[in-house]
Amino acid sequence: MPSPSVPPTMRQLHSLVREDATLELSLAQVPTPEPAEHEVLIRIDATPISPSDLALLLALGDGSGAESTGTADAPVTTIPLSRGVMAAVSGRVGEPTTVGNEGCGVVVAAGSDPAAQALLGRRVSFAGGDAFADYRALPAQVCLPLPDDSAPASGAASFVNPMTALLMLETMREEGHTALVHTAAASSLGQMLVRLCQADSVPLVNVVRREEQAALLRDLGAEHVVISGTDSFAADLQEAVAATGATLAFDAIGGGRLASQILSAMEAAESAGAPYSRYGSDVHKQVYIYGGLDRSPTELIRSCGFAWGLGGWLLMPRLSRLGGEGIVRLRTRVAHELTTTFATTYAREITLAEALDPGTIAGYAALETGGKYLIRPDLG
Amino acid sequence: MPSPSVPPTMRQLHSLVREDATLELSLAQVPTPEPAEHEVLIRIDATPISPSDLALLLALGDGSGAESTGTADAPVTTIPLSRGVMAAVSGRVGEPTTVGNEGCGVVVAAGSDPAAQALLGRRVSFAGGDAFADYRALPAQVCLPLPDDSAPASGAASFVNPMTALLMLETMREEGHTALVHTAAASSLGQMLVRLCQADSVPLVNVVRREEQAALLRDLGAEHVVISGTDSFAADLQEAVAATGATLAFDAIGGGRLASQILSAMEAAESAGAPYSRYGSDVHKQVYIYGGLDRSPTELIRSCGFAWGLGGWLLMPRLSRLGGEGIVRLRTRVAHELTTTFATTYAREITLAEALDPGTIAGYAALETGGKYLIRPDLG
Repeated sequence: MPSPSVPPTMRQLHSLVREDATLELSLAQVPTPEPAEHEVLIRIDATPISPSDLALLLALGDGSGAESTGTADAPVTTIPLSRGVMAAVSGRVGEPTTVGNEGCGVVVAAGSDPAAQALLGRRVSFAGGDAFADYRALPAQVCLPLPDDSAPASGAASFVNPMTALLMLETMREEGHTALVHTAAASSLGQMLVRLCQADSVPLVNVVRREEQAALLRDLGAEHVVISGTDSFAADLQEAVAATGATLAFDAIGGGRLASQILSAMEAAESAGAPYSRYGSDVHKQVYIYGGLDRSPTELIRSCGFAWGLGGWLLMPRLSRLGGEGIVRLRTRVAHELTTTFATTYAREITLAEALDPGTIAGYAALETGGKYLIRPDLG
Repeated sequence: MPSPSVPPTMRQLHSLVREDATLELSLAQVPTPEPAEHEVLIRIDATPISPSDLALLLALGDGSGAESTGTADAPVTTIPLSRGVMAAVSGRVGEPTTVGNEGCGVVVAAGSDPAAQALLGRRVSFAGGDAFADYRALPAQVCLPLPDDSAPASGAASFVNPMTALLMLETMREEGHTALVHTAAASSLGQMLVRLCQADSVPLVNVVRREEQAALLRDLGAEHVVISGTDSFAADLQEAVAATGATLAFDAIGGGRLASQILSAMEAAESAGAPYSRYGSDVHKQVYIYGGLDRSPTELIRSCGFAWGLGGWLLMPRLSRLGGEGIVRLRTRVAHELTTTFATTYAREITLAEALDPGTIAGYAALETGGKYLIRPDLG
C-alpha cells in the first residue's frame, strides 16, 4: 500500500506516434503504482535525458517543428515526422511509449519483504525504464542505495553510462583486446570512459569532431585524442592506434565511413613491417556500433584484410551474459566511485513539464557536448 | 633426390607488379624443388583457376588491356593497372608472386620417410600454393591420395571449395545457427554447397543474379533460390529467410547493399509478430564476407536491430582453429565424395602457356557461371 502522502495518480511522460505522421508528447495522469511484496516505490527527483532516451522520446526525429497544443496543466506537444522516420517507427503507431532509462529518488513506500522495508526513506538510484514520471515501483534488489545526503544530480545517471563503460572493458578483456578506440568520445559516456581507462591503465584512443572537444578530453588527462574530418585524421588515427595497439573500437556514430577508417587504421598498424599478404593481417580487428548519432548507412571500404568484424553492441544483453555476480561486482564499483570516475555533469535542470516545451526540446535534442539535461520531476 | 626423369628446372607462373603500374605475367624457369625427408615431389597435371587465384594472378585487376610481349618459348604478358589497383597492391611491387592454391598430379619422387615413400607413383591432390607450375614439393601428410584411375579434373579442386563448404557448415553449427544464406550461389562452390546442404539436411537460401543461374540450382534440387536485383527481391529473400530460419549468411560479393539486405531480411523474419522493440530482435544475425566479387564499399543500412554482426571469413584460419582431428575428418569425407558432393566441372582446359594468352585471360577473368578453367601443365 502506498503511504498516505503518495497521491493516487501521477504524471508519466507519453510519446505517441500517430497515424497522421505526428509525434505527440503528453503528461498522462496514470495510477501511481503500488509496490508488490518485494518492491519499493520511488518518488523520482532526477532522471537524465540520454541519447538513447532521446531516440525513443522523439521517435528517431530531431524534434524540429515542435508545437505546444495543450494547456499549462496538461501540456501536449506535437512534432511532425518525416516519411523515413515513420517507416522506421511504424511498429509504434497508436501505442503510447513511456520513456526514461534511469533515475534516482527517495523510497516512499515498500512491500512487506524485509529487503524492501529496509530501503524505506533511503535515497536510491535505479534503471529499468519509465523514469520520466513522478513515481516508479521496482524490485528492491535492482535499486542501488546512495548516501542519504547525495544530491539528486549525482545518482541520476548511475546505471546506463557507468555500466556501459564498465561493460566495454569487460568485452575488451573477454575478446582478447588490450586497448580501445572510442568515437563521440566527448560525450558524458566518453568522459567517463577516459577516467575509467585511466583508473584501469587501459590505453584509449578518443575520436572527437572538434578541437574544443579534444581540449576538454585533454584537460581530463586523455593521452590520445584525434579529430575526425581533418586532413591529418587518417594519419593521426593510425599513429594513435599503433601507439596503443588497439584492435577494438566502440562507435556511437554508426553512419558514414568512420568505422571503416578505424578498421583500416588497425589493419595498417597490424600489418606495418610485415611481409605482404593478400589476406591481410591475421589479428582480429573489431568495431562495435552501440549508437546511431549518424543514421546514414555504414560504408565499409574493406581495406582491412579478412580478420575483421563489425557488429551491434547493446548493454542489456551483454549484462545478462555477464550474470548476477558480475553485475553485483560492477554495481559495487559504481557505488564507490559515483562522484569520481562515474560522475556526470549537466548543462541544465528542467521540470517534467518543461521537457515538453518546444524551445527546451530544441536544446536537449541538439546533443551538444556538455549539454546533457536532467529532468527534475520534484520541481514541477 | 629427384628421380632421373625429373628435369632440373621447371616452369612456374610468376605475377609481378612493376613500379610503372604494369602487371607482368611470365613463365619463369626455376630449379625443380627436391623433396626433403618427409616430402614428396608431385608432377602437376591439373590446377583450377579459382576467384581467389584470379585476384592474386591479375593483382585485383580485370585483365583488360593484356598484351603478349614475350616469345613462344618464354611468353610474357603485360597488363596495365589502374591507380586504385596500384594503391591496393603497393605491397607487391617488385616482388614476383607465385600463384595456384591447389591441384593434383602424380608423385614422381619422395624423401626417405616411409610415409613419403608410400606415395611414390600415386595420384594425389594438394593445396598450399604455387600450383601454377610443373612440379610442387610438399609434406606427404598434406597430400590426399586419389584413386589411381581418377581423371586429372576430378581431383584438382579437392581442397579449397570442398573444405570451404564444409567449414561453412562447421561455423554454422559452432555459432548456433541452423540454416544458411549463400550469395553468388551458382559458383562452383555454391553448387557444391547445394549438394552438401542436401546431404546434411541443412536449409539453404541461394542468392543468384540471373534466372539461368536460378534454373541451374533448381536443376540441382535447390529449394530456395532468389534472384537479386529484381523488384521482388527483398520480399522473396525475406520469405525464404523466414521459411528456413536462416540467421547466418556467407557472402562472396562484399560490395553494395546485399549483406545489408540479408541482415534486414533476417531481422524482419525474426521480429515478425513480436511486440515492437526499439532495439530490434535479440536473435543474433551474422553475415560473413568471404570474397570480393564486388570491390565497392559495403553499405549497411542498419535496419537490423543491435544483435547483428558483419565480418571477414577466411578458410585457413578457420581450418587451423578446427585442429588436426577435425581436418582429417573433413578431408576423409571429401575423399569419399569427390566425384559426387564435391565434384567440380570445367568449361575449358588450358595449358600453362595458354594461361598467359590475352584472349584466354579475358575468358577466365569473366568469372562466368559454369565458366571455370582448369590449367593442365602436363599438356604444355
